[in-house]
Amino acid sequence: MITGVHTPIVTPFSGDESIDFEAMKHNLGRWKRTDLDGVLVLGSNGEFPYLLREEKTRLVGFVRKHWPLGRSLLAGTGCQTTEETSALTAEAAAEGADAVLVLPPHYYRGLMTEAALYAHYAAVADSSPVPVLIYNMPANTGINLSSSLVSRLAAHGNIAGIKDSSGNIVQIAEIVRGAIERGGGEGFAVLAGSASFLLPSLSVGAKGAVAALGNILPDECCRLYSLALDERWDEARELQLRLLEINATVTSGLGVPALKAAMDLLGYRGGCVRRPLQPLAAGQIEHVRDVLRRCRPG
Amino acid sequence: MITGVHTPIVTPFSGDESIDFEAMKHNLGRWKRTDLDGVLVLGSNGEFPYLLREEKTRLVGFVRKHWPLGRSLLAGTGCQTTEETSALTAEAAAEGADAVLVLPPHYYRGLMTEAALYAHYAAVADSSPVPVLIYNMPANTGINLSSSLVSRLAAHGNIAGIKDSSGNIVQIAEIVRGAIERGGGEGFAVLAGSASFLLPSLSVGAKGAVAALGNILPDECCRLYSLALDERWDEARELQLRLLEINATVTSGLGVPALKAAMDLLGYRGGCVRRPLQPLAAGQIEHVRDVLRRCRPG
Amino acid sequence: MITGVHTPIVTPFSGDESIDFEAMKHNLGRWKRTDLDGVLVLGSNGEFPYLLREEKTRLVGFVRKHWPLGRSLLAGTGCQTTEETSALTAEAAAEGADAVLVLPPHYYRGLMTEAALYAHYAAVADSSPVPVLIYNMPANTGINLSSSLVSRLAAHGNIAGIKDSSGNIVQIAEIVRGAIERGGGEGFAVLAGSASFLLPSLSVGAKGAVAALGNILPDECCRLYSLALDERWDEARELQLRLLEINATVTSGLGVPALKAAMDLLGYRGGCVRRPLQPLAAGQIEHVRDVLRRCRPG
Amino acid sequence: MITGVHTPIVTPFSGDESIDFEAMKHNLGRWKRTDLDGVLVLGSNGEFPYLLREEKTRLVGFVRKHWPLGRSLLAGTGCQTTEETSALTAEAAAEGADAVLVLPPHYYRGLMTEAALYAHYAAVADSSPVPVLIYNMPANTGINLSSSLVSRLAAHGNIAGIKDSSGNIVQIAEIVRGAIERGGGEGFAVLAGSASFLLPSLSVGAKGAVAALGNILPDECCRLYSLALDERWDEARELQLRLLEINATVTSGLGVPALKAAMDLLGYRGGCVRRPLQPLAAGQIEHVRDVLRRCRPG
Repeated sequence: MITGVHTPIVTPFSGDESIDFEAMKHNLGRWKRTDLDGVLVLGSNGEFPYLLREEKTRLVGFVRKHWPLGRSLLAGTGCQTTEETSALTAEAAAEGADAVLVLPPHYYRGLMTEAALYAHYAAVADSSPVPVLIYNMPANTGINLSSSLVSRLAAHGNIAGIKDSSGNIVQIAEIVRGAIERGGGEGFAVLAGSASFLLPSLSVGAKGAVAALGNILPDECCRLYSLALDERWDEARELQLRLLEINATVTSGLGVPALKAAMDLLGYRGGCVRRPLQPLAAGQIEHVRDVLRRCRPG
Repeated sequence: MITGVHTPIVTPFSGDESIDFEAMKHNLGRWKRTDLDGVLVLGSNGEFPYLLREEKTRLVGFVRKHWPLGRSLLAGTGCQTTEETSALTAEAAAEGADAVLVLPPHYYRGLMTEAALYAHYAAVADSSPVPVLIYNMPANTGINLSSSLVSRLAAHGNIAGIKDSSGNIVQIAEIVRGAIERGGGEGFAVLAGSASFLLPSLSVGAKGAVAALGNILPDECCRLYSLALDERWDEARELQLRLLEINATVTSGLGVPALKAAMDLLGYRGGCVRRPLQPLAAGQIEHVRDVLRRCRPG
Repeated sequence: MITGVHTPIVTPFSGDESIDFEAMKHNLGRWKRTDLDGVLVLGSNGEFPYLLREEKTRLVGFVRKHWPLGRSLLAGTGCQTTEETSALTAEAAAEGADAVLVLPPHYYRGLMTEAALYAHYAAVADSSPVPVLIYNMPANTGINLSSSLVSRLAAHGNIAGIKDSSGNIVQIAEIVRGAIERGGGEGFAVLAGSASFLLPSLSVGAKGAVAALGNILPDECCRLYSLALDERWDEARELQLRLLEINATVTSGLGVPALKAAMDLLGYRGGCVRRPLQPLAAGQIEHVRDVLRRCRPG
Repeated sequence: MITGVHTPIVTPFSGDESIDFEAMKHNLGRWKRTDLDGVLVLGSNGEFPYLLREEKTRLVGFVRKHWPLGRSLLAGTGCQTTEETSALTAEAAAEGADAVLVLPPHYYRGLMTEAALYAHYAAVADSSPVPVLIYNMPANTGINLSSSLVSRLAAHGNIAGIKDSSGNIVQIAEIVRGAIERGGGEGFAVLAGSASFLLPSLSVGAKGAVAALGNILPDECCRLYSLALDERWDEARELQLRLLEINATVTSGLGVPALKAAMDLLGYRGGCVRRPLQPLAAGQIEHVRDVLRRCRPG
């Protein structure tokens, strides 16, 4: 079962927009020295829609080489067709991914009925050599994967959990309950899709998180998780509240460019973004610096 | 400080759509024998937009007469204008309301800027003889009261808290934190607007709930709250998960008509709705009965 | 049949927020000297949700007294309950309204099924002494009245048309077609809810408009309508395009406060708004003045 | 200037989901015998997000080979990055496309500010060997390209127009006006993105359409356009109204699978869809047949 704190790692680019593998290696070296349970490559924070197919495969192999075998490596393999998703999933597994995270196809959102989505996920899971995690990200896809759909999918033997980034805490609770009722409870992990709702998610039965904030504050994210496991709720609450503003700034606020800027400020190497994303303006970088100064624990 | 579990009581109507005060008295008699900390009259579940001004005032007085003085009586007094809201607030206080719950004016939602909303709430709170609670109900109003607005309002001496029905748990956490930072933390209570996210809300610092489910399962709602206070998290989680389906059925699912039907099934007197609301069809009543049978604890 | 150009007149308030009947009389005197086919009192631009019941009734009578009998007087009588809507409709008719415009009840929007809305409109139309117009205003109500619902209602003998403010031109065309198919075509008028889409609405069979812009540019609105009737399409198009920016500024842009400010600038008496609406800031008034200067025809 | 009626052609697939070039050739042969001014390959109705990069290039060349040189060939070349979009644009031009239609990158929709979108389109247009058309498709992308952004882009020498599928007729009118004011009026064509609002779009200055309905009813779409050009408004209106239901069925209703089914019913070869799209159920095919029977003109 996939539990604990994972971070969806950014993909650093050089000034010419090519992948900066040296920067990636540097970052992995630092994350290795934290308590992170795993990393996700090719996630939304990794600018996956901006990567070519061959870049994706290569990145999985590269991260596997520089990330300890005993710790989880997840790979985002959702593509727009079922066939492409299965093909990329097989490649990612061959490159060493322990599990894959599958975003739903979403361009024809009006046609993505529960029947179509169920068939898609079942087909991908049937053919995948590694466990499949569902990825619910309505802010970017325009599609919400309902608790009833996810509960049905939880009964599939090769579907191991969900990263829910909706922030809908009732839905998260319903998925926990639905998975238990469908008999998938033991093997199905609900993971909070953001550090901003990690504690409330754990309160209703989530098993961990895949949190962008882990790129810059991995120890704080892990500490929040372990405080909750130890039932030290007052300390957990205090830490949860403290992390809100930083998290909002580098995710829903200014997004990936701000996350990369924060990495640069904290000794990681965030690097450039690919266009059409735009780098932060100078004033925005100052804002990120200020939020880090005010809100960073310890 | 207003803490603990409150329920927004329904307004029973007779077959001719007049208020059924006998039924109201019957229900209050039963709720009195529970651990409910308070009741809210003239809330969304009380069909407040369907009540005439004189009916509203009379209802506050009637409930006060039949509800113990030592337990909280809240009254919903939000109207479309600032002046009307202040006037109804004064009347409700005169009839014995301990505090008022104020929905934002929302018809001209595009014009309800933070400046306009701040001015509205400040004016109402300035003139109110009793503490004011903010009521955030975006599903019905189309307006979300942001955590930054609410945090600013929390600093007002006569604004005592918020019922947040958005279900946005990050926003709820941000309000808890913002109120503390603004110095309103001690006197400002964040109340979950639904039993479906009571436990996660408590995990981030909420102080209670105003929950429709309290109309039919008051003891279970109170038990969930006290399990959390006692830090018996596993039992709390189990109860929270169990209540989800019933709650969804009588709120977001089939709404007030279903809540009233459930009351009828459980020995309360829900009574009729006012048009344009429509009573449940026979098959829908069977569905409510079935959900109650399957999910009701104990 | 209700055809041609109508304007939803503003309700001027004095500095103390009471209705300024003198200003209203002044405005009616000016509108009388235009080609406007009719006026709507108690519409969205008339701040109807901010008026007390007795104010509403009095306003209908006052406008009737100062508006020629041969020209249409419509009154907005939509309330949150079916009973209230019927009662206010009867009063408005008694005060001289030629027809009423009925906004759907919308607070419990999730419960406003097509069945509930059909029953509501049919009940109101059954009891109304004057013809009923449907009012579709999704931006404010959060509810869209579908073309299939409206087509069914068009078959009712006492439902005479719709003001559609959705701006959804396909829906407007579908309603024209649906009303014809249901046999209500002859007696059912589709009216554009804004001057910004008057010409395209006429191109698919609308019969006129109820347009806020008529408060300040009544002659231009009437000219656009008659150019289309005369099939002078190039001139009509040029005028339509020219009116867009002014219209946007005083409706979707800055709303009723801007419409009132524009009236003040053009020799009408817009007067104050009621709170929580806020008056324009000085810079905003300058913006309105500038847009009028740049875009006003002639 | 790109004017007149174009159709975004479907991509027929065989049962094994490979491209059925024979079917494509068959369809092109039939469309050649109509009055269509042009075709769009790689559009939303062509399932472009489901095609591999090499399939896209090959399809442009294939269509060019089978579509008369004197008639427009447009190609959809929008990708998620600026670089990829430019690269595919160059390839499409090399394969014979007369112009390209560029959908905005949309995964990080919260970051797609007007500045980012302007920079993207300007960079693509700067490097493109052929004219660029903007493609506004908010239903699928979650991003609306505002009239102010489009008007600014209209001033670019190599941006030749827009396909606006929003159905927002006021926005379409604003773009016509904005392009004229920016001096791009002569060389900038606004094209309706659907046959359902072709006539109203023409009434405010659009120059044609890129309409899915042209796949199955090309002559009717062309006839509607020429009736409007000839100012035969009553006949145009009658035809516009008649086409609404068929159009809704094969676009917003059941989408691409229904469009393909309708093609099969009318002697074209629609073929299979790629998963996760699902073929129509038997009952849905009957529905399409019934709508065609009832509504098809002539």
